[in-house]
Amino acid sequence: MRIAVIPGDGIGREVIGAARDVLDAVSAAHGFKLSYTEFDWGCERYTREGAMMPADGLDVLRDFDSILLGAVGWPGVPDHVSLWGLLIPIRRTFRQYVNLRPIRTFTGVETPVREAEFDFVVVRENVEGEYSEAGGRLNRGFPDELAIQEAIFTRAGVTRIVDYAFALAALRRGYLTSATKSNGIVHTLPFWDEIVAERAEHHPGVRWDSEHIDALAAKFVLQPGRFDVVVGSNLFGDILSDLAAAVAGSIGIAPSANLDPTREFPSMFEPVHGSAPDIAGTGVANPVGAVWSAALMLEHLGRPDAAADVLAAIETTLAQPSTRTPDLGGTASTREVTEALVRSAS
Amino acid sequence: MRIAVIPGDGIGREVIGAARDVLDAVSAAHGFKLSYTEFDWGCERYTREGAMMPADGLDVLRDFDSILLGAVGWPGVPDHVSLWGLLIPIRRTFRQYVNLRPIRTFTGVETPVREAEFDFVVVRENVEGEYSEAGGRLNRGFPDELAIQEAIFTRAGVTRIVDYAFALAALRRGYLTSATKSNGIVHTLPFWDEIVAERAEHHPGVRWDSEHIDALAAKFVLQPGRFDVVVGSNLFGDILSDLAAAVAGSIGIAPSANLDPTREFPSMFEPVHGSAPDIAGTGVANPVGAVWSAALMLEHLGRPDAAADVLAAIETTLAQPSTRTPDLGGTASTREVTEALVRSAS
Ligand SMILES: CC(C)[C@H](C(=O)O)[C@@H](O)C(=O)O
Ligand SMILES: CC(C)[C@H](C(=O)O)[C@@H](O)C(=O)O
Repeated sequence: MRIAVIPGDGIGREVIGAARDVLDAVSAAHGFKLSYTEFDWGCERYTREGAMMPADGLDVLRDFDSILLGAVGWPGVPDHVSLWGLLIPIRRTFRQYVNLRPIRTFTGVETPVREAEFDFVVVRENVEGEYSEAGGRLNRGFPDELAIQEAIFTRAGVTRIVDYAFALAALRRGYLTSATKSNGIVHTLPFWDEIVAERAEHHPGVRWDSEHIDALAAKFVLQPGRFDVVVGSNLFGDILSDLAAAVAGSIGIAPSANLDPTREFPSMFEPVHGSAPDIAGTGVANPVGAVWSAALMLEHLGRPDAAADVLAAIETTLAQPSTRTPDLGGTASTREVTEALVRSAS
Repeated sequence: MRIAVIPGDGIGREVIGAARDVLDAVSAAHGFKLSYTEFDWGCERYTREGAMMPADGLDVLRDFDSILLGAVGWPGVPDHVSLWGLLIPIRRTFRQYVNLRPIRTFTGVETPVREAEFDFVVVRENVEGEYSEAGGRLNRGFPDELAIQEAIFTRAGVTRIVDYAFALAALRRGYLTSATKSNGIVHTLPFWDEIVAERAEHHPGVRWDSEHIDALAAKFVLQPGRFDVVVGSNLFGDILSDLAAAVAGSIGIAPSANLDPTREFPSMFEPVHGSAPDIAGTGVANPVGAVWSAALMLEHLGRPDAAADVLAAIETTLAQPSTRTPDLGGTASTREVTEALVRSAS
């Protein structure tokens, strides 16, 4: 299984190193082999060569079984360069229309909210919606200047993400929540709601409801335990999954999978956290988000057994005060946590 | 001072009754008089007469000094009817471009998060942005169907809300946070960011920064105490203010003001909560959101002294276990809380 590895910027490099160590340990234990090809794409390359990745970068990636990414973004490089020059083209070119973000509590990770135990998944639409290049400016520089942004929701795009979410809910506790705001956003979100209601008929075993994004954000704080699978548009899924990661105790442990469920293209796995310039290079980045993302990759590559071992290693490691990084109130370094994960996964 | 009162639907009626009682008490104590005209607009009227308000409803409101609204919306009446037939036209026709949502903790109101004390204001753009009627559908009913929603941000619209927020921050602790998502939403939000940076130069006394909405939502949970004034677009302000109300302990106490700062038109004051069909009629709705909204109205009408007394009454009442409604873990009825507020404000 050939893995393209893009450590990217800042702590991206540190946590991807950790993820590779854990992958090596668990694949050795299970008797299979992963081969890695590392790419030095990111903001440093941009500063040096004027592009985040080579012109044929996407073609190069196309032949891999999957992509493991650290983080992209660095002060001085505008976001629209770092993201639209690497992360977003990968998501879109490879039709990774599902962004999967599991959220759960762990023994040893204190939640900032009253509820201490929950386990749900945010399924985010990942290639269309509010993140669109359609739109522009009028009367630039004049008092009557304005900007227009077009959110575009297609029937095919909404149907496939909603179907994915219903199917996932059927494999879990059978309950789906759809994020909407059809009371304020009167074209795209009523369309989304219609499709959710239509697709529900094809998944009769799943209980579902629909909540406005404002109320839903509030419920994530007040009653996170009530959720099983939550499906949202590109923007809503983004907001809800970051919020949920905070509610679960730390953005540092949150993983994500950018999936092409048709398997025509490689899928991409990345921690939810960014490049964290403030702590980059200090050796204290939490590797768990990247390691858990690697576990999601193993599952996608058909090794749920190895994935389960990685998750068990994460549980064991987080449960020990001595192997928690500062974002979780501990004093362990990235290295120490990684060594504990490797020991436990071997 | 002539007040148009629109109790609306569900618990809207119950809490507006409470707000009037408290307004009567405090105005008597301060020796001024408010005159009320009540309008039975809302979903019941819609069911009876096919419209949420009469055709000349907006003209009727135009002559009042301000508008006190309970809540609109009821099962069976589609949201686009109840909101776009009443609430949103009022906000837009009367150019209430500021939606002000104070968030603070109170003794007696437990927060669901670790931080126990904070005090900030969400300033939400209220008449343009993502809530727009521009957009539509293509190929309705066919597999290639799609919906487009246009968010429209104007220079004038962004400038005035940002200026309002900077000025408010200058009167408070001098710190403004702007909500953005310019890394994903590449036309409107970079424009928003540019204007924030420009206007900052006109408010040199205010420290400011900019945060992506996903990270900001997470920080509302993890470190609500760091905020003073937070400014966001129509959608972002909506999400953040509901989230913040939950973080502060209950949506039931959260107030809002829809302001036309030019005072050409009447401003509108309404609790953040909705009509709550599940508890409507049971007499346990929390009146504090409506009463606090009435205090914001007094401030706007030039009676900050009376407004301060209402806020003091809220503090006293919430501090007593015997005068808290069930949403705050108490057992008091709307009536009992209202009587306590009236006693304290008299
Ligand atoms: C009901 C809805 C349209 C409204 C809004 O989002 O503006 C409400 O959520 C609010 O915040 O006042
Ligand atoms: C960096 C940004 C464009 C990105 C997104 O919103 O998609 C990030 O927040 C994420 O969630 O992966």
